[in-house]
Amino acid sequence: MKAVVLLSGGLDSSTVLYQAKADGYDSYALSFDYQQRHRRELEAAAAIAQTAGVIAHQVVTFDLRCWGGSALTDDAIDLPEGRSLSQMSESIPVTYVPARNTIFLSFALAYAETIGAERVYIGVNALDYSGYPDCRPDYIAAMQEVFRLGTKQGREGDAIAIMTPLLHLKKTEIIQLGDRLGVPWKLTWSCYAGGEVACGVCDSCRLRLAAFAELGLKDPLPYAVKRE
Amino acid sequence: MKAVVLLSGGLDSSTVLYQAKADGYDSYALSFDYQQRHRRELEAAAAIAQTAGVIAHQVVTFDLRCWGGSALTDDAIDLPEGRSLSQMSESIPVTYVPARNTIFLSFALAYAETIGAERVYIGVNALDYSGYPDCRPDYIAAMQEVFRLGTKQGREGDAIAIMTPLLHLKKTEIIQLGDRLGVPWKLTWSCYAGGEVACGVCDSCRLRLAAFAELGLKDPLPYAVKRE
Repeated sequence: MKAVVLLSGGLDSSTVLYQAKADGYDSYALSFDYQQRHRRELEAAAAIAQTAGVIAHQVVTFDLRCWGGSALTDDAIDLPEGRSLSQMSESIPVTYVPARNTIFLSFALAYAETIGAERVYIGVNALDYSGYPDCRPDYIAAMQEVFRLGTKQGREGDAIAIMTPLLHLKKTEIIQLGDRLGVPWKLTWSCYAGGEVACGVCDSCRLRLAAFAELGLKDPLPYAVKRE
Repeated sequence: MKAVVLLSGGLDSSTVLYQAKADGYDSYALSFDYQQRHRRELEAAAAIAQTAGVIAHQVVTFDLRCWGGSALTDDAIDLPEGRSLSQMSESIPVTYVPARNTIFLSFALAYAETIGAERVYIGVNALDYSGYPDCRPDYIAAMQEVFRLGTKQGREGDAIAIMTPLLHLKKTEIIQLGDRLGVPWKLTWSCYAGGEVACGVCDSCRLRLAAFAELGLKDPLPYAVKRE
Protein backbone atom coordinates (compact mmCIF):
# COMPACT_ATOMS: atom_id res chain seq x y z
CA MET A 1 0.00 0.00 0.00
CA LYS A 2 1.35 3.39 -1.05
CA ALA A 3 0.84 6.84 0.43
CA VAL A 4 2.04 10.28 -0.64
CA VAL A 5 3.07 12.38 2.38
CA LEU A 6 3.38 16.16 2.17
CA LEU A 7 6.60 16.90 4.03
CA SER A 8 7.81 20.41 4.85
CA GLY A 9 10.42 19.25 7.33
CA GLY A 10 8.58 20.81 10.26
CA LEU A 11 7.34 19.21 13.44
CA ASP A 12 3.81 18.59 12.14
CA SER A 13 4.54 17.07 8.74
CA SER A 14 7.34 14.93 10.20
CA THR A 15 4.89 13.49 12.71
CA VAL A 16 2.47 12.80 9.86
CA LEU A 17 5.15 10.92 7.94
CA TYR A 18 5.80 8.68 10.95
CA GLN A 19 2.04 8.18 11.31
CA ALA A 20 1.80 7.02 7.66
CA LYS A 21 4.60 4.54 8.37
CA ALA A 22 2.80 3.35 11.52
CA ASP A 23 -0.37 2.91 9.44
CA GLY A 24 1.55 0.43 7.27
CA TYR A 25 2.09 2.54 4.13
CA ASP A 26 5.07 2.69 1.84
CA SER A 27 5.65 6.42 1.89
CA TYR A 28 6.45 8.74 -1.00
CA ALA A 29 7.42 12.10 0.47
CA LEU A 30 6.63 15.27 -1.47
CA SER A 31 8.19 18.66 -0.73
CA PHE A 32 8.08 22.00 -2.52
CA ASP A 33 10.73 24.51 -3.32
CA TYR A 34 8.65 27.64 -3.88
CA GLN A 35 11.37 30.18 -3.17
CA GLN A 36 10.39 30.36 0.44
CA ARG A 37 12.74 32.58 2.41
CA HIS A 38 15.29 29.88 3.13
CA ARG A 39 16.49 26.39 2.17
CA ARG A 40 16.76 25.18 5.74
CA GLU A 41 13.29 23.59 5.64
CA LEU A 42 14.09 21.54 2.52
CA GLU A 43 17.30 20.23 4.09
CA ALA A 44 15.27 19.19 7.13
CA ALA A 45 12.70 17.47 4.89
CA ALA A 46 15.43 15.49 3.12
CA ALA A 47 16.99 14.39 6.43
CA ILE A 48 13.62 13.33 7.89
CA ALA A 49 12.62 11.49 4.69
CA GLN A 50 15.85 9.54 4.69
CA THR A 51 15.67 8.71 8.40
CA ALA A 52 12.06 7.58 8.05
CA GLY A 53 13.01 5.29 5.15
CA VAL A 54 10.67 6.61 2.45
CA ILE A 55 10.56 4.90 -0.96
CA ALA A 56 11.13 8.22 -2.74
CA HIS A 57 11.33 11.92 -1.91
CA GLN A 58 10.25 14.27 -4.69
CA VAL A 59 10.82 18.02 -4.58
CA VAL A 60 8.62 20.04 -6.95
CA THR A 61 9.95 23.48 -7.75
CA PHE A 62 7.77 26.43 -8.62
CA ASP A 63 7.91 30.18 -8.18
CA LEU A 64 5.28 32.28 -6.43
CA ARG A 65 7.57 35.28 -5.94
CA CYS A 66 6.49 36.56 -9.34
CA TRP A 67 3.32 37.81 -7.72
CA GLY A 68 4.17 38.05 -3.99
CA GLY A 69 1.37 38.34 -1.44
CA SER A 70 2.84 36.68 1.67
CA ALA A 71 5.65 37.37 4.12
CA LEU A 72 6.97 33.88 3.30
CA THR A 73 7.40 34.62 -0.40
CA ASP A 74 7.62 38.40 -0.60
CA ASP A 75 10.72 40.15 0.76
CA ALA A 76 8.81 43.44 0.99
CA ILE A 77 6.60 42.09 3.81
CA ASP A 78 8.23 41.79 7.24
CA LEU A 79 7.96 38.63 9.32
CA PRO A 80 5.90 39.09 12.49
CA GLU A 81 7.73 38.82 15.80
CA GLY A 82 6.80 38.92 19.44
CA ARG A 83 3.03 38.49 19.09
CA SER A 84 1.24 36.75 21.93
CA LEU A 85 -0.14 33.26 21.31
CA SER A 86 -3.69 34.62 21.47
CA GLN A 87 -2.90 37.34 18.91
CA MET A 88 -1.62 34.64 16.57
CA SER A 89 -4.91 32.74 16.54
CA GLU A 90 -7.12 35.78 16.04
CA SER A 91 -6.52 36.76 12.44
CA ILE A 92 -5.05 35.49 9.22
CA PRO A 93 -1.32 36.20 9.59
CA VAL A 94 0.88 37.81 6.94
CA THR A 95 2.67 34.47 6.63
CA TYR A 96 -0.48 33.15 4.93
CA VAL A 97 0.37 32.13 1.36
CA PRO A 98 -2.75 32.35 -0.83
CA ALA A 99 -3.98 28.90 -1.88
CA ARG A 100 -0.82 27.18 -0.66
CA ASN A 101 -2.45 24.01 0.63
CA THR A 102 -4.60 23.84 -2.50
CA ILE A 103 -1.47 23.92 -4.64
CA PHE A 104 0.31 21.39 -2.42
CA LEU A 105 -2.65 18.99 -2.40
CA SER A 106 -3.04 19.32 -6.19
CA PHE A 107 0.52 18.19 -6.76
CA ALA A 108 0.08 15.42 -4.19
CA LEU A 109 -3.01 14.28 -6.07
CA ALA A 110 -1.08 14.21 -9.36
CA TYR A 111 1.75 12.23 -7.76
CA ALA A 112 -0.63 9.83 -6.00
CA GLU A 113 -2.59 9.09 -9.16
CA THR A 114 0.61 8.58 -11.14
CA ILE A 115 2.10 6.03 -8.72
CA GLY A 116 -1.23 4.42 -7.74
CA ALA A 117 -1.21 5.56 -4.11
CA GLU A 118 -4.34 5.15 -2.02
CA ARG A 119 -3.75 7.97 0.41
CA VAL A 120 -2.36 11.49 0.70
CA TYR A 121 -1.24 12.56 4.18
CA ILE A 122 -1.12 16.23 5.14
CA GLY A 123 -0.29 17.82 8.50
CA VAL A 124 -2.98 20.51 8.53
CA ASN A 125 -4.19 21.62 11.90
CA ALA A 126 -7.41 23.47 12.60
CA LEU A 127 -6.46 24.73 16.06
CA ASP A 128 -3.00 26.26 16.00
CA TYR A 129 -3.58 27.70 12.53
CA SER A 130 -7.21 28.70 12.91
CA GLY A 131 -6.43 31.89 11.02
CA TYR A 132 -5.71 29.95 7.81
CA PRO A 133 -8.79 29.24 5.69
CA ASP A 134 -7.15 26.20 4.08
CA CYS A 135 -6.51 24.36 7.36
CA ARG A 136 -10.15 23.77 8.30
CA PRO A 137 -12.24 20.59 8.13
CA ASP A 138 -14.78 21.94 5.61
CA TYR A 139 -11.95 22.94 3.28
CA ILE A 140 -10.41 19.46 3.51
CA ALA A 141 -13.83 17.92 2.75
CA ALA A 142 -14.09 20.13 -0.36
CA MET A 143 -10.64 19.00 -1.53
CA GLN A 144 -11.66 15.38 -0.94
CA GLU A 145 -14.50 15.91 -3.45
CA VAL A 146 -11.97 17.27 -5.93
CA PHE A 147 -9.83 14.16 -5.36
CA ARG A 148 -12.89 12.00 -6.09
CA LEU A 149 -14.16 13.83 -9.17
CA GLY A 150 -10.91 15.10 -10.66
CA THR A 151 -9.14 11.80 -11.28
CA LYS A 152 -9.51 8.58 -13.27
CA GLN A 153 -8.98 6.61 -10.07
CA GLY A 154 -11.73 8.47 -8.18
CA ARG A 155 -14.21 8.19 -11.07
CA GLU A 156 -13.61 4.50 -11.70
CA GLY A 157 -13.11 3.19 -8.17
CA ASP A 158 -12.09 4.41 -4.73
CA ALA A 159 -10.97 8.01 -4.43
CA ILE A 160 -7.52 8.73 -3.08
CA ALA A 161 -8.18 9.58 0.58
CA ILE A 162 -6.87 12.75 2.23
CA MET A 163 -5.58 11.82 5.69
CA THR A 164 -5.31 14.58 8.29
CA PRO A 165 -4.19 12.88 11.52
CA LEU A 166 -3.36 16.21 13.20
CA LEU A 167 -6.51 18.12 12.23
CA HIS A 168 -7.98 18.38 15.72
CA LEU A 169 -4.84 18.03 17.85
CA LYS A 170 -3.29 20.76 19.98
CA LYS A 171 0.41 21.38 19.45
CA THR A 172 1.16 19.57 22.72
CA GLU A 173 -0.83 16.55 21.53
CA ILE A 174 1.07 16.54 18.23
CA ILE A 175 4.35 16.44 20.14
CA GLN A 176 3.06 13.62 22.34
CA LEU A 177 2.01 11.68 19.23
CA GLY A 178 5.35 12.29 17.54
CA ASP A 179 7.20 11.20 20.67
CA ARG A 180 5.29 7.90 20.69
CA LEU A 181 6.04 7.40 16.96
CA GLY A 182 9.75 8.14 17.43
CA VAL A 183 10.00 11.32 15.34
CA PRO A 184 13.60 12.61 15.49
CA TRP A 185 12.80 16.18 16.62
CA LYS A 186 16.39 17.32 16.30
CA LEU A 187 16.15 16.88 12.49
CA THR A 188 12.97 18.94 12.13
CA TRP A 189 12.80 22.65 11.38
CA SER A 190 9.95 25.03 12.25
CA CYS A 191 11.53 28.50 12.24
CA TYR A 192 10.32 30.99 9.62
CA ALA A 193 13.62 32.90 9.66
CA GLY A 194 15.99 30.14 8.52
CA GLY A 195 19.30 31.09 10.13
CA GLU A 196 22.02 28.72 11.28
CA VAL A 197 19.93 28.02 14.38
CA ALA A 198 16.22 28.61 14.94
CA CYS A 199 15.44 32.23 15.91
CA GLY A 200 13.16 31.46 18.86
CA VAL A 201 11.07 34.62 18.33
CA CYS A 202 8.97 34.07 15.19
CA ASP A 203 5.39 32.80 15.60
CA SER A 204 6.40 29.30 14.58
CA CYS A 205 9.33 29.01 17.02
CA ARG A 206 7.25 30.42 19.87
CA LEU A 207 4.35 28.00 19.31
CA ARG A 208 6.81 25.12 19.26
CA LEU A 209 8.78 26.21 22.33
CA ALA A 210 5.61 26.90 24.31
CA ALA A 211 4.28 23.40 23.55
CA PHE A 212 7.51 21.62 24.54
CA ALA A 213 7.65 23.72 27.72
CA GLU A 214 4.02 22.93 28.59
CA LEU A 215 4.81 19.21 28.35
CA GLY A 216 7.96 19.59 30.44
CA LEU A 217 9.94 18.22 27.48
CA LYS A 218 13.18 19.51 26.06
CA ASP A 219 13.20 20.63 22.43
CA PRO A 220 16.55 19.26 21.19
CA LEU A 221 16.91 22.05 18.58
CA PRO A 222 19.33 24.86 19.40
CA TYR A 223 17.72 28.34 19.47
CA ALA A 224 19.22 31.82 19.22
CA VAL A 225 16.72 33.13 21.83
CA LYS A 226 14.41 31.15 24.10
CA ARG A 227 11.53 33.31 25.32
CA GLU A 228 8.99 30.76 26.54
CA MET B 1 -12.84 44.45 -12.36
CA LYS B 2 -10.06 41.90 -12.65
CA ALA B 3 -10.06 38.34 -13.97
CA VAL B 4 -7.36 35.69 -14.14
CA VAL B 5 -7.54 33.77 -17.43
CA LEU B 6 -5.84 30.39 -17.85
CA LEU B 7 -4.22 30.62 -21.27
CA SER B 8 -2.53 27.69 -23.02
CA GLY B 9 -2.35 29.40 -26.38
CA GLY B 10 -4.85 26.99 -27.94
CA LEU B 11 -8.12 27.69 -29.68
CA ASP B 12 -10.25 27.17 -26.56
CA SER B 13 -8.34 29.22 -24.00
CA SER B 14 -7.79 32.04 -26.52
CA THR B 15 -11.55 32.23 -27.07
CA VAL B 16 -12.02 32.34 -23.29
CA LEU B 17 -9.58 35.25 -22.99
CA TYR B 18 -11.56 37.22 -25.57
CA GLN B 19 -14.77 36.33 -23.71
CA ALA B 20 -13.32 37.72 -20.46
CA LYS B 21 -12.49 40.94 -22.32
CA ALA B 22 -16.00 41.07 -23.78
CA ASP B 23 -17.39 40.58 -20.24
CA GLY B 24 -15.59 43.80 -19.27
CA TYR B 25 -12.70 42.37 -17.20
CA ASP B 26 -9.12 43.54 -17.02
CA SER B 27 -7.41 40.25 -17.80
CA TYR B 28 -4.37 38.72 -16.14
CA ALA B 29 -3.29 35.76 -18.27
CA LEU B 30 -1.69 32.75 -16.58
CA SER B 31 0.25 30.07 -18.44
CA PHE B 32 2.33 27.13 -17.29
CA ASP B 33 5.66 25.81 -18.37
CA TYR B 34 5.51 22.25 -17.11
CA GLN B 35 8.04 20.77 -19.50
CA GLN B 36 5.36 19.84 -21.96
CA ARG B 37 6.78 18.39 -25.16
CA HIS B 38 7.33 21.70 -26.86
CA ARG B 39 7.57 25.47 -26.32
CA ARG B 40 5.36 26.32 -29.28
CA GLU B 41 2.26 26.57 -27.08
CA LEU B 42 3.89 29.09 -24.74
CA GLU B 43 4.97 31.27 -27.66
CA ALA B 44 1.37 31.20 -28.91
CA ALA B 45 0.09 32.13 -25.44
CA ALA B 46 2.43 35.12 -25.29
CA ALA B 47 1.37 36.35 -28.74
CA ILE B 48 -2.35 35.98 -27.96
CA ALA B 49 -1.96 37.69 -24.57
CA GLN B 50 -0.21 40.64 -26.15
CA THR B 51 -2.71 40.95 -28.99
CA ALA B 52 -5.63 40.76 -26.57
CA GLY B 53 -4.09 43.54 -24.46
CA VAL B 54 -3.88 41.79 -21.08
CA ILE B 55 -2.66 43.71 -18.03
CA ALA B 56 -0.07 41.03 -17.26
CA HIS B 57 0.92 37.56 -18.47
CA GLN B 58 2.48 35.31 -15.85
CA VAL B 59 4.16 32.01 -16.67
CA VAL B 60 4.53 29.64 -13.72
CA THR B 61 7.18 26.98 -14.19
CA PHE B 62 7.06 23.57 -12.58
CA ASP B 63 8.26 20.09 -13.43
CA LEU B 64 6.04 17.02 -13.64
CA ARG B 65 8.54 15.00 -15.66
CA CYS B 66 10.10 13.81 -12.42
CA TRP B 67 7.25 11.33 -12.11
CA GLY B 68 5.88 11.02 -15.67
CA GLY B 69 2.45 9.48 -16.23
CA SER B 70 1.24 11.17 -19.43
CA ALA B 71 2.21 11.29 -23.10
CA LEU B 72 2.44 15.07 -22.77
CA THR B 73 5.06 14.95 -20.03
CA ASP B 74 6.68 11.53 -20.42
CA ASP B 75 8.86 10.84 -23.48
CA ALA B 76 8.45 7.08 -22.98
CA ILE B 77 4.74 7.25 -23.90
CA ASP B 78 3.93 7.73 -27.61
CA LEU B 79 1.45 10.33 -28.80
CA PRO B 80 -1.70 8.83 -30.31
CA GLU B 81 -2.29 9.37 -34.02
CA GLY B 82 -5.00 8.52 -36.51
CA ARG B 83 -7.78 7.65 -34.06
CA SER B 84 -11.35 8.30 -35.19
CA LEU B 85 -13.23 11.14 -33.52
CA SER B 86 -15.53 8.63 -31.80
CA GLN B 87 -12.56 6.67 -30.46
CA MET B 88 -11.22 9.88 -28.96
CA SER B 89 -14.32 10.50 -26.89
CA GLU B 90 -14.64 6.95 -25.57
CA SER B 91 -11.82 6.66 -23.09
CA ILE B 92 -9.34 8.71 -21.12
CA PRO B 93 -6.49 9.31 -23.57
CA VAL B 94 -2.78 8.86 -22.82
CA THR B 95 -2.44 12.64 -23.17
CA TYR B 96 -4.34 12.93 -19.87
CA VAL B 97 -2.06 14.59 -17.29
CA PRO B 98 -3.09 13.50 -13.78
CA ALA B 99 -4.67 16.39 -11.86
CA ARG B 100 -3.57 18.98 -14.42
CA ASN B 101 -6.63 21.21 -14.22
CA THR B 102 -6.56 20.95 -10.43
CA ILE B 103 -2.97 22.21 -10.42
CA PHE B 104 -3.77 24.95 -12.96
CA LEU B 105 -6.84 26.14 -11.05
CA SER B 106 -4.91 26.11 -7.77
CA PHE B 107 -2.30 28.49 -9.14
CA ALA B 108 -5.04 30.61 -10.72
CA LEU B 109 -6.71 30.81 -7.30
CA ALA B 110 -3.46 31.91 -5.68
CA TYR B 111 -2.92 34.55 -8.35
CA ALA B 112 -6.54 35.77 -8.20
CA GLU B 113 -6.49 36.11 -4.43
CA THR B 114 -3.17 37.94 -4.53
CA ILE B 115 -4.30 40.56 -7.07
CA GLY B 116 -7.90 40.78 -5.82
CA ALA B 117 -9.52 39.32 -8.95
CA GLU B 118 -13.19 38.37 -8.86
CA ARG B 119 -13.11 35.68 -11.52
CA VAL B 120 -10.99 32.87 -12.92
CA TYR B 121 -11.72 31.88 -16.53
CA ILE B 122 -10.86 28.40 -17.80
CA GLY B 123 -11.57 26.83 -21.19
CA VAL B 124 -12.66 23.39 -20.02
CA ASN B 125 -15.09 21.57 -22.24
CA ALA B 126 -17.23 18.64 -21.21
CA LEU B 127 -18.01 17.42 -24.74
CA ASP B 128 -14.83 17.23 -26.78
CA TYR B 129 -12.83 16.08 -23.76
CA SER B 130 -15.42 13.84 -22.17
CA GLY B 131 -12.66 11.33 -21.43
CA TYR B 132 -11.01 13.73 -18.97
CA PRO B 133 -12.38 13.55 -15.42
CA ASP B 134 -11.31 17.13 -14.68
CA CYS B 135 -13.32 18.72 -17.51
CA ARG B 136 -16.79 17.87 -16.18
CA PRO B 137 -19.38 20.11 -14.52
CA ASP B 138 -19.40 18.24 -11.19
CA TYR B 139 -15.62 18.57 -10.97
CA ILE B 140 -15.81 22.32 -11.62
CA ALA B 141 -18.49 22.63 -8.91
CA ALA B 142 -16.18 20.83 -6.47
CA MET B 143 -13.33 23.22 -7.30
CA GLN B 144 -15.69 26.16 -6.82
CA GLU B 145 -16.25 24.96 -3.24
CA VAL B 146 -12.48 24.86 -2.76
CA PHE B 147 -12.28 28.45 -4.07
CA ARG B 148 -14.93 29.45 -1.53
CA LEU B 149 -13.53 27.65 1.51
CA GLY B 150 -9.80 27.78 0.78
CA THR B 151 -9.29 31.55 0.66
CA LYS B 152 -9.58 34.62 2.86
CA GLN B 153 -11.65 36.28 0.16
CA GLY B 154 -14.15 33.40 -0.07
CA ARG B 155 -14.46 33.11 3.74
CA GLU B 156 -14.97 36.81 4.32
CA GLY B 157 -17.04 37.82 1.30
CA ASP B 158 -17.77 36.65 -2.24
CA ALA B 159 -15.83 33.67 -3.51
CA ILE B 160 -13.73 34.05 -6.62
CA ALA B 161 -15.96 32.61 -9.36
CA ILE B 162 -14.78 29.94 -11.79
CA MET B 163 -16.08 30.88 -15.25
CA THR B 164 -16.37 28.11 -17.85
CA PRO B 165 -17.92 29.73 -20.92
CA LEU B 166 -17.07 26.74 -23.15
CA LEU B 167 -18.22 23.98 -20.82
CA HIS B 168 -21.19 22.82 -22.88
CA LEU B 169 -20.16 24.00 -26.35
CA LYS B 170 -19.24 21.79 -29.28
CA LYS B 171 -15.91 22.58 -30.98
CA THR B 172 -17.83 24.16 -33.88
CA GLU B 173 -19.72 26.40 -31.46
CA ILE B 174 -16.46 27.45 -29.81
CA ILE B 175 -15.08 28.49 -33.20
CA GLN B 176 -18.28 30.41 -33.96
CA LEU B 177 -18.00 32.18 -30.59
CA GLY B 178 -14.32 32.97 -31.14
CA ASP B 179 -15.07 34.28 -34.62
CA ARG B 180 -17.67 36.69 -33.20
CA LEU B 181 -15.20 37.82 -30.51
CA GLY B 182 -12.41 38.38 -33.04
CA VAL B 183 -9.94 35.74 -31.83
CA PRO B 184 -6.87 35.81 -34.10
CA TRP B 185 -6.84 32.08 -34.99
CA LYS B 186 -3.56 32.33 -36.85
CA LEU B 187 -1.76 33.05 -33.55
CA THR B 188 -3.25 30.06 -31.70
CA TRP B 189 -1.65 26.63 -31.42
CA SER B 190 -3.44 23.33 -30.81
CA CYS B 191 -1.05 20.66 -32.09
CA TYR B 192 0.37 18.18 -29.54
CA ALA B 193 3.48 17.57 -31.64
CA GLY B 194 4.94 21.07 -31.70
CA GLY B 195 6.88 21.19 -34.98
CA GLU B 196 7.46 24.23 -37.17
CA VAL B 197 3.91 23.83 -38.47
CA ALA B 198 1.02 21.90 -36.92
CA CYS B 199 1.15 18.16 -37.70
CA GLY B 200 -2.48 17.75 -38.78
CA VAL B 201 -2.67 14.15 -37.54
CA CYS B 202 -2.68 14.26 -33.72
CA ASP B 203 -6.05 14.13 -31.90
CA SER B 204 -5.94 17.85 -31.24
CA CYS B 205 -5.20 18.89 -34.84
CA ARG B 206 -7.86 16.54 -36.19
CA LEU B 207 -10.58 17.83 -33.83
CA ARG B 208 -9.72 21.38 -34.82
CA LEU B 209 -9.56 20.72 -38.56
CA ALA B 210 -12.82 18.75 -38.50
CA ALA B 211 -14.61 21.60 -36.74
CA PHE B 212 -13.37 24.30 -39.16
CA ALA B 213 -14.31 22.04 -42.10
CA GLU B 214 -17.80 21.39 -40.71
CA LEU B 215 -18.39 25.15 -40.50
CA GLY B 216 -17.06 25.69 -44.01
CA LEU B 217 -14.39 27.98 -42.55
CA LYS B 218 -10.70 28.08 -43.34
CA ASP B 219 -8.25 27.44 -40.49
CA PRO B 220 -5.52 30.03 -41.19
CA LEU B 221 -2.81 27.85 -39.55
CA PRO B 222 -0.44 25.99 -41.90
CA TYR B 223 -0.49 22.19 -41.44
CA ALA B 224 1.99 19.51 -42.47
CA VAL B 225 -0.87 17.13 -43.38
CA LYS B 226 -4.57 17.94 -43.74
CA ARG B 227 -6.72 14.81 -43.43
CA GLU B 228 -10.19 16.22 -42.76
